[in-house]
Amino acid sequence: MTLEAELSQEQCRFLLASQIFGRVGLTSGALPVIVPVEYVYDDGVITFRTERDSKLRAAEHGDVLAFEVDGYDATSGEGWSVHVLGRATVITHDHEITALPTLDLPRAAERHHYVRLHCEVVSGRRLSSTRA
Amino acid sequence: MTLEAELSQEQCRFLLASQIFGRVGLTSGALPVIVPVEYVYDDGVITFRTERDSKLRAAEHGDVLAFEVDGYDATSGEGWSVHVLGRATVITHDHEITALPTLDLPRAAERHHYVRLHCEVVSGRRLSSTRA
Repeated sequence: MTLEAELSQEQCRFLLASQIFGRVGLTSGALPVIVPVEYVYDDGVITFRTERDSKLRAAEHGDVLAFEVDGYDATSGEGWSVHVLGRATVITHDHEITALPTLDLPRAAERHHYVRLHCEVVSGRRLSSTRA
Repeated sequence: MTLEAELSQEQCRFLLASQIFGRVGLTSGALPVIVPVEYVYDDGVITFRTERDSKLRAAEHGDVLAFEVDGYDATSGEGWSVHVLGRATVITHDHEITALPTLDLPRAAERHHYVRLHCEVVSGRRLSSTRA
């Protein structure tokens, strides 16, 4: 896939589906936070498992979250980045839940929580270092 | 370097200094944003070059920015992540500026802007997928 400066919607969604590791961006206590997650992307929806933390609270409030995936080769200075904005919801119905891995440290006696991020605004671009 | 669940300050700063590609997290127009940057870390300070965009505006306002670097092996489900919070400032004195590459698309007739992020809160942890 040859990447133009601005990625097409199709390219962005292909790249989202090709990865399992991304980063959630949110505002917690008026401060920006970036949290790495393992995720699954399917048909415009990102799903990830979470412990009871800032990203679960954001989803419980129906906040808009940012999500980012990228690939970058530090040697060549070339890569790509896809950015998503969307409203988060907690999956509450058991039949909607599929087992997903998580990067969060498990806490004792904690049930699993799953967050769904609806990809409302998706954009991406090629990264190219000016040193390259 | 063997990584414990929580990384020490020394490990975090070693990892920050070992990378050149990271992500700035900020709030712009009440929405969270994650922006990839090339950066230099030296003695508790992250410096990156930027075009006139949300991260420059945040620095002009002296906002607190988040910064994240990570390394993750999708095959093994193992990695690490370092998270920084700090106040951003624009470097205004010419003698403070060293040429740095940027991932931003250059805009016509735009001078170079440099942002300095003072690493006030630094934390890091080992990432380990529950599927691993």
